[in-house]
Amino acid sequence: MNKVNLSEISKSIKNELSVFEGIYSDSIRSKIQLVDWIAKYMLKQKGKKIRPLLVILSAKACGEVSERAYRGATLVELLHSATLIHDDVVDNADQRRGLPSINAVWKNKAAVLMGDYLLSRGLLIAINGRDFDFLEVITNTVRRMSEGELLQIQKTRKLDIDEETYFRVISDKTASLMETCCEIGALSASDDSEFRVAMRNYGLYLGISFQIQDDILDYEGSFKIFGKVIGTDIKEKKITLPLIYALKNSSSREASNIRKLLKGKKTKSTIKEIISFVQSKDGIEYSRTRAREYSNKAIESLKVLPETPARHALESLVSFVVERRN
Amino acid sequence: MNKVNLSEISKSIKNELSVFEGIYSDSIRSKIQLVDWIAKYMLKQKGKKIRPLLVILSAKACGEVSERAYRGATLVELLHSATLIHDDVVDNADQRRGLPSINAVWKNKAAVLMGDYLLSRGLLIAINGRDFDFLEVITNTVRRMSEGELLQIQKTRKLDIDEETYFRVISDKTASLMETCCEIGALSASDDSEFRVAMRNYGLYLGISFQIQDDILDYEGSFKIFGKVIGTDIKEKKITLPLIYALKNSSSREASNIRKLLKGKKTKSTIKEIISFVQSKDGIEYSRTRAREYSNKAIESLKVLPETPARHALESLVSFVVERRN
Repeated sequence: MNKVNLSEISKSIKNELSVFEGIYSDSIRSKIQLVDWIAKYMLKQKGKKIRPLLVILSAKACGEVSERAYRGATLVELLHSATLIHDDVVDNADQRRGLPSINAVWKNKAAVLMGDYLLSRGLLIAINGRDFDFLEVITNTVRRMSEGELLQIQKTRKLDIDEETYFRVISDKTASLMETCCEIGALSASDDSEFRVAMRNYGLYLGISFQIQDDILDYEGSFKIFGKVIGTDIKEKKITLPLIYALKNSSSREASNIRKLLKGKKTKSTIKEIISFVQSKDGIEYSRTRAREYSNKAIESLKVLPETPARHALESLVSFVVERRN
Repeated sequence: MNKVNLSEISKSIKNELSVFEGIYSDSIRSKIQLVDWIAKYMLKQKGKKIRPLLVILSAKACGEVSERAYRGATLVELLHSATLIHDDVVDNADQRRGLPSINAVWKNKAAVLMGDYLLSRGLLIAINGRDFDFLEVITNTVRRMSEGELLQIQKTRKLDIDEETYFRVISDKTASLMETCCEIGALSASDDSEFRVAMRNYGLYLGISFQIQDDILDYEGSFKIFGKVIGTDIKEKKITLPLIYALKNSSSREASNIRKLLKGKKTKSTIKEIISFVQSKDGIEYSRTRAREYSNKAIESLKVLPETPARHALESLVSFVVERRN
């Protein structure tokens, strides 16, 4: 398998991404000193910027990259940053992208408010640009993301999550934002509703396979890879696809033993035991097959688009998502 | 002074408020069981509902109470509830309106997500109703509220807050939402820009005197009144108008002594000492004068409106705000 490189994919829209970076940096600055300090700090925590990349590539695959595409890219990145900051507060995380998290530096209160501030800045950009179609899409996404996470919490508490619920949770909590990025990109560049549906589906399927891969990575290897610690989901009693499949694929006695381990205190050896169980029951292999199935659907969705370098880059992005190791 | 009763004021729009209650209750329900449980619980934590009251009275004072007014009232109440839930998370509060807080019952993670969910529901109501004017107003308010609170945090850390900053903080953090309620009410009922400006000013001035009164209540008496504990702001090093004035109105030696007390550990006796200091330096009297000044400005703003029972109710609300004891 060829290693796909994210910076290789970004290269085709290097200029557009640097225009976006400028608009994004300006958008988070504030006259309030504390807000501005946090904003500048955020710019140092460099993320992968997959979401703005999706907006711009989708726009380019459907037509031209316009002002509206840049506003859309800024809107989704602001929303994504707001979500990450709130996530770090609720998870008590002390690191983000190799730097101390905002809650760790400025405390929870400032972090929650900063999240609200970023969300409102994003919405204001869309309102000022009269992008009411973006607003409708993005607000629905905020609802889906919070409902998806709340569903996951509800199910996690009782350790009863089946494959159907798993797919619902990851569609809402992760894939919905990627779906939105691609839909906003399409909307910014074209009136063609076929393109809009195609891009939306591409984003949804890409997001699903992205999340399955994320969940697989929690089971792979037995040590830290690129800063990601194995077994975090198990520690948090999060039951994801590899484990769901393994539990279904085992005797009720084996399954009830694993459930007991999940409920109890998690030592290194319990985590190891659960990981081996998942491996022995083909949980990872099954998940990989499902991830590939969705990757193929994502690529399939692009067929209605003209063959352009942007479409090609979107195809490569699918390979990047399922091949990535962190 | 005549005691003004909130239920007396509400009586004139009893039917409208009950229509609102129905729409609001429906708006927060969800197919996700956990979300629905929290929503039902929230309906039991009955608040004063001052914000929907403001929307409906403002609409009535400017014209008729329309569908749009109900959507506006629902939008502001959803936003307000979202803010309260986030506030309880960051303050680690375990009570809200006489019941355990949502973070206390369902943990921080569910509470932060529920706040995000409520905000998105509010925005969706406005989007589905095509109330883009409401959206513009409310999103700006979310930005002002978070910036105002962040400014307060920044200033609180260094104990350097002057009167000008105090008024900026309370205008943004508290009064902006009341301003928005009244503006949305006016927008829903009339195209008259004079009415819109009048109602916006009324809401802003009402909100400022509401917050000054809140800050006075933190210094009054020496025991718990109606569940409100005296001295909470002092404990949190929050410097509000009574103390700002007292510090300005004292020798630099007295002031530096009080600052020392504020920075140190707060025992009952330090809190008592600070309260006596504020009282002896006329901090409360001064604040009361300023609150009345803004109440008068609020009533003054209503002069352009026709004399109706709704306008009269808005006038009574001003008295309620500055006379309230909790």
